[in-house]
Amino acid sequence: MNIPQCSFPRVVIIGGGFAGISLAKKLRNKKLQVVLLDKHNYHNFQPLMYQVATGGLEPDSIAYPIRKVVQEYEDFYFRLADVKEIDTKAKKVIADIGELKYDYLVIATGSKTNFFGNKEMERNAMAMKTIPQSLNIRSLILENFEQALLTNDINERHSLMNFVLVGGGPTGVELAGALAEMKKAILPKDYPDLDIRKMEINLIQSGDRILNTMSENASEKAEKFLIDLGVEVWKNVRVTGYDGKVVTTNSDLKFETATVIWTAGVQGALVAGLDGHALVERADRIKVNAYNQVEGYDTIFAIGDIALMSSEEYPQGHPMMAQPAMQQGRHLAENVLRLVNKKEMKPFTYNDKGSMATIGRNKAVVDLPKFQFSGVFAWFVWMFVHLFSLIGFKNKAVVFLNWVYNYIRFDREARLIIRPYKKKKIESFVSDEI
Amino acid sequence: MNIPQCSFPRVVIIGGGFAGISLAKKLRNKKLQVVLLDKHNYHNFQPLMYQVATGGLEPDSIAYPIRKVVQEYEDFYFRLADVKEIDTKAKKVIADIGELKYDYLVIATGSKTNFFGNKEMERNAMAMKTIPQSLNIRSLILENFEQALLTNDINERHSLMNFVLVGGGPTGVELAGALAEMKKAILPKDYPDLDIRKMEINLIQSGDRILNTMSENASEKAEKFLIDLGVEVWKNVRVTGYDGKVVTTNSDLKFETATVIWTAGVQGALVAGLDGHALVERADRIKVNAYNQVEGYDTIFAIGDIALMSSEEYPQGHPMMAQPAMQQGRHLAENVLRLVNKKEMKPFTYNDKGSMATIGRNKAVVDLPKFQFSGVFAWFVWMFVHLFSLIGFKNKAVVFLNWVYNYIRFDREARLIIRPYKKKKIESFVSDEI
Repeated sequence: MNIPQCSFPRVVIIGGGFAGISLAKKLRNKKLQVVLLDKHNYHNFQPLMYQVATGGLEPDSIAYPIRKVVQEYEDFYFRLADVKEIDTKAKKVIADIGELKYDYLVIATGSKTNFFGNKEMERNAMAMKTIPQSLNIRSLILENFEQALLTNDINERHSLMNFVLVGGGPTGVELAGALAEMKKAILPKDYPDLDIRKMEINLIQSGDRILNTMSENASEKAEKFLIDLGVEVWKNVRVTGYDGKVVTTNSDLKFETATVIWTAGVQGALVAGLDGHALVERADRIKVNAYNQVEGYDTIFAIGDIALMSSEEYPQGHPMMAQPAMQQGRHLAENVLRLVNKKEMKPFTYNDKGSMATIGRNKAVVDLPKFQFSGVFAWFVWMFVHLFSLIGFKNKAVVFLNWVYNYIRFDREARLIIRPYKKKKIESFVSDEI
Repeated sequence: MNIPQCSFPRVVIIGGGFAGISLAKKLRNKKLQVVLLDKHNYHNFQPLMYQVATGGLEPDSIAYPIRKVVQEYEDFYFRLADVKEIDTKAKKVIADIGELKYDYLVIATGSKTNFFGNKEMERNAMAMKTIPQSLNIRSLILENFEQALLTNDINERHSLMNFVLVGGGPTGVELAGALAEMKKAILPKDYPDLDIRKMEINLIQSGDRILNTMSENASEKAEKFLIDLGVEVWKNVRVTGYDGKVVTTNSDLKFETATVIWTAGVQGALVAGLDGHALVERADRIKVNAYNQVEGYDTIFAIGDIALMSSEEYPQGHPMMAQPAMQQGRHLAENVLRLVNKKEMKPFTYNDKGSMATIGRNKAVVDLPKFQFSGVFAWFVWMFVHLFSLIGFKNKAVVFLNWVYNYIRFDREARLIIRPYKKKKIESFVSDEI
């Protein structure tokens, strides 16, 4: 990989998401050689991806070039690389662009969509974990309406205008809300010759409440907001299959639809090479101790979504979200420095700052550790927090400008099909990975 | 295509570029049924495409949803359609989504890159006529530097850092200038472990001056600006081939390069079905009379780049640029209305408002009909004119914000590889058309 040898210990970080970037920032100019590897040359801000999918934001606004983050860091190297395997014996990573020795290795590869082994679903449903996937969803939504105009078959038209979202977590809820707002304010104007009232948004949740990682209050409010917006919320329904035409469930309920968006599960984005007993099978996460050290390895760490640190309060590990990832990244930086300086490491404790979700215009729910609230003020808090979490002044400004514009004009202008999905699918060169 | 019959005459417009959109706007609510067909669901602002290719702007900022333009137009229909053929006998167009009868047909399909039959060049060089193509170029530029980091072969590294631009028209000149600015301000910071001084930008022009449709003064100034920025300008050199590794020319001059961007020619984007004598062979344009009527047809018109209206002042037709396209579109709208109302049509005359090109920061050339100028003031005029030509308030605001930011920070933040080009090429599913 053409990384020069130097006298400092080498820390290799795989993944430039929230965890990896937080770690890298804290390791700046610390007499360590740091090498950051990522499949993409940008960091992307996942919490706003649903707005890219629904035409509210442009992809560049929620992404940031990694090289720009680490500009002017000394002894710091970024490489655009797809890591294939870790050779823990030889202490090296093996990537598409070559091999690299490490002194310390940090796995921060994040998570990917979990279809729980349902191959049919994986083939026919859309996922939304990457920017290209978000653009695919945006294209598909718009292509559906273009196609609905052309058919005289009522069933086909209904199927094209029926959107089924599987999974009632924050992504599913936010996406459902955004689609409902498109239905209300944009689509009737864009498609005057279609009866947009016939558009359906079905949100399906296997459990008995949506946003089940939040408070019951938040779940109730969010559901009410969604219903007010015209979303059909189905609880205690488990989706069993989708052949590209009909969604089947564990009950008699069926949905004829051309579009299924699957946000019902995530799993760790594992890299091969770790010993089996360090892995948690179903979720594909890596077991770590309180120092984020991977079970069985002294010099290998895992942080963020991929890491499962079991504690009394979080027996199943921390929630797979930005906050724990960033906190672990920052904390591990200190521990790595302690380790290098032969000091004792300190255990990680998660400081839960709360969680939130937005449903639409003036509608959000916020859970803080001490109290919960919802509505207009929650919505402003949501916007404020997300705006200031974006990296870079320009991204903040552009997103702010877009939001003000969209708010005032009830509009979402980024509805361009720049990545035609159906056409690609037909020509069978859809690749969601890139 | 599911367009209802109505008592008004039906005008079918193929193409939503500058010409088609200008025409459509003027035909709003005029007791005509208007159907606009385009392969994309957006209008794109070609003059700023080079900034998308060089990371200065995001694609959505220079594109605008066509449905948004024509929202609330009565008896107006947009269809996302790829027109395959015109059946002039049956008076209908045949597209991928079906057939459509017309009373009046307007061909506004614009132009595409002309490789003058050089298949090898077409296969190995990049073109920049569409937004996906611009994103491909952006990706390729960045991928080249990522790859240059990895090689120890000096020739390979040089070839990856050598950019050859064929064609000294506005696109080639503006792209060369933008690349030179990346070389100066951005790449050394992003790639501290590469010697960016070794990066070369070669602009090759077959004639004896660049910007040869502008004044000699503009050509000279632009060349000086480019040379000051470190661009190598080659005049009177004709490129003869590019096998993917070496560019050959009509002299001994050769360029070893991984990147050739071809902006050396355009040709009409013809639709099949017109009688041969209406076509101009080499340029693939359509001969029209002073009313934009296609030679030999009463009810078929052509406007914009595709139309060749020969006049005393412009024996080879008008320049293939936005201005004539927009003027012809607006003028034809009036003529169509005259025709429908059995009045006599009026001939088109082109009002040349001048032309301009930007080379970089504070550097532009402007030719007005009465006088010419260059430098900082020209640059401001260029920005002002382009900003106000963009459709939509939000696009204007976002582009303005980006420009101010880029200017102050000497930056271009949109350098994300969201459409990996090389990887696609290897997997042989590059499709420039979509």
